[in-house]
Amino acid sequence: MASTAGKVIKCRAAVAWEAGKPLVIEEVEVAPPQAMEVRIKILFTSLCHTDVYFWEAKGQKPVFPRIFGHEAGGIVESVGEGVTELAPGDHVLPVFTGECKDCAHCKSEESNMCTLLRINTDRGVMIGDGQSRFSIHGKPIYHFVGTSTFSEYTVVHVGCLAKINPNAPLDKVCVLSCGISTGLGATLNVAKPAKGSSVAIFGLGAVGLAAAEGARIAGASRIIGVDVNPRRFLEAKKFGVNEFVNPKDYQKPVQEVLAEMTDGGVDRSIECTGNIDAMISAFECVHDGWGVAVLVGVPHKDAVFKTHPMNVLNERTLKGTFFGNYKPRSDIPAVVEKYMSKELELEKFITHEIPFSEINKAFEYMLKGDSLRCIIRMQE
Amino acid sequence: MASTAGKVIKCRAAVAWEAGKPLVIEEVEVAPPQAMEVRIKILFTSLCHTDVYFWEAKGQKPVFPRIFGHEAGGIVESVGEGVTELAPGDHVLPVFTGECKDCAHCKSEESNMCTLLRINTDRGVMIGDGQSRFSIHGKPIYHFVGTSTFSEYTVVHVGCLAKINPNAPLDKVCVLSCGISTGLGATLNVAKPAKGSSVAIFGLGAVGLAAAEGARIAGASRIIGVDVNPRRFLEAKKFGVNEFVNPKDYQKPVQEVLAEMTDGGVDRSIECTGNIDAMISAFECVHDGWGVAVLVGVPHKDAVFKTHPMNVLNERTLKGTFFGNYKPRSDIPAVVEKYMSKELELEKFITHEIPFSEINKAFEYMLKGDSLRCIIRMQE
Repeated sequence: MASTAGKVIKCRAAVAWEAGKPLVIEEVEVAPPQAMEVRIKILFTSLCHTDVYFWEAKGQKPVFPRIFGHEAGGIVESVGEGVTELAPGDHVLPVFTGECKDCAHCKSEESNMCTLLRINTDRGVMIGDGQSRFSIHGKPIYHFVGTSTFSEYTVVHVGCLAKINPNAPLDKVCVLSCGISTGLGATLNVAKPAKGSSVAIFGLGAVGLAAAEGARIAGASRIIGVDVNPRRFLEAKKFGVNEFVNPKDYQKPVQEVLAEMTDGGVDRSIECTGNIDAMISAFECVHDGWGVAVLVGVPHKDAVFKTHPMNVLNERTLKGTFFGNYKPRSDIPAVVEKYMSKELELEKFITHEIPFSEINKAFEYMLKGDSLRCIIRMQE
Repeated sequence: MASTAGKVIKCRAAVAWEAGKPLVIEEVEVAPPQAMEVRIKILFTSLCHTDVYFWEAKGQKPVFPRIFGHEAGGIVESVGEGVTELAPGDHVLPVFTGECKDCAHCKSEESNMCTLLRINTDRGVMIGDGQSRFSIHGKPIYHFVGTSTFSEYTVVHVGCLAKINPNAPLDKVCVLSCGISTGLGATLNVAKPAKGSSVAIFGLGAVGLAAAEGARIAGASRIIGVDVNPRRFLEAKKFGVNEFVNPKDYQKPVQEVLAEMTDGGVDRSIECTGNIDAMISAFECVHDGWGVAVLVGVPHKDAVFKTHPMNVLNERTLKGTFFGNYKPRSDIPAVVEKYMSKELELEKFITHEIPFSEINKAFEYMLKGDSLRCIIRMQE
């Protein structure tokens, strides 16, 4: 056990005091982990769109002051009562959703939507006692999706931590905490394209490019990127995307364009934008008889998915996925091994790297659309 | 070869001269089979809703005079040029959709929607030469879905004939030509419920009850029948349906009723009505994380399937099926064997039996909702 075990740790954290305002690096107090909790030292974190979305707090319940951050790599500092799978020194990736290993979802081979630890973006406290582990002068600072990795130390439920190979470089594999696994798993675990097949990817941000990386790994021969931003196409080539369609270049619906390009439709499609029209196109562009469309992007709360039921009857499949259908504790360690064996490339997702003190730059890069992933080094 | 080979055969057929008018037993001339065609002697046929739907010709293009019928069992009388898989005397089930074994769909393990021989309800002629093989005094009588089994002899493309075990009783296995295989395959090939799982069946007609029979064979422990007609419930018990929900008994949507009954949703659902609201309910009633909904019923041409995309994102799957995903030639012989080995029960689907001369009674039984399947004996 570290000498800090059982004690409050004072450290730096980037606090969001208000919606949309720059984060402020503050000294926070991080309480020791309680039952089934683990305190970890974050070494690297990265910024994901979901952080930005809830930081902007447009349309959802604002929870402030709050410590964002959910893609990260760290080392266990100390563990709370009942934690037997992790010990100080273990390398871990915190995950925004969990795996209690005891609920119907965890016991199902098909689901990763743990009842106990499923993502809850409104909750700013630990599930054990309903309290925050962060405070400044006794005033609580709220958690975000159970991870709050924009802090040198954070407390996470043991069910939300994947124990990984200690030789894996945390400044690379930290991106597997969320977006990259989400896209990769959407392809490898859900769409499952056959070798030589055609795959359309809607949205060429980090998640979509990770889906493309999955298609490349699966041996798809045609990986068609669909995006309204042509700037994305050059970068996408690095991820195996070998054809591009900009819906703005056509009068007709993009599903018709894709069907003409592929003699009736693509074998698989993966929707990574969350735009409802893109979702419908992604479904309708798959081939009848065998096509599978996988929805990944999170839609607007009022969105309605509409299609003619014959599109379904003609043997198309529509599936949704959450975190690429990976169970955080059971499956993520093996994804890290895919990187270690060089099957999976992560370096190309990392476009920027900055010290923690400059964390607001990561928000700027993402808002401008300049970055895929910006790694934030906690140690300056 | 029979002595009739190569010659026109005169025989009895039930001709639909006009939409919705009783069929008339006429003497028709049946031309010999041309290239890739087979002439078969029908011994037993049965009536399916699809016959009634196109006979009523409400909303589709009327094609008359026409010989309906597509569920049947028969014996090969003679074969046309190029037919090598079948010979006179073989027992066959004609199927309304085909398997050319050469197109992308036939080569796909996942699809049974043959490009060449896919159902076409508007076509009243053979695909080889665009002519009908039926005539009365030289005037053509049109075919229906390539089968036209309401005739003592008919001509069918070889790709639409399943060669079956000659020991199988044709008066029973003839029902596997369409509806029963459609429902059975929807469960066994597409929904694939696990042993001990829960399955909701929407619509307890013959197709829905065949889907229930599939759930029984698969070992589902809860088979929940959903129908607005409570008269269906008693009969459904014979098919393993052990719980019943009548949507008319509730104020709330039936998907909510089912979710409450099953702690969040059923494991699988199968929609066999074609009603768009039932389709939406069938999708929304499956459990998040692992639920699979399978659409079987054919919708109205203007129907729109609508749902909130989060219902998909939460790891539900929506699939459609056509003829239970069975490839007619490759797979139906094995379904017949399931009956021969007593794994599959067919007798309980057969509620009536009549001689060919009384064929209009079969229409009456079905229109009144009194029958599941009415077997029509061609030999009086």
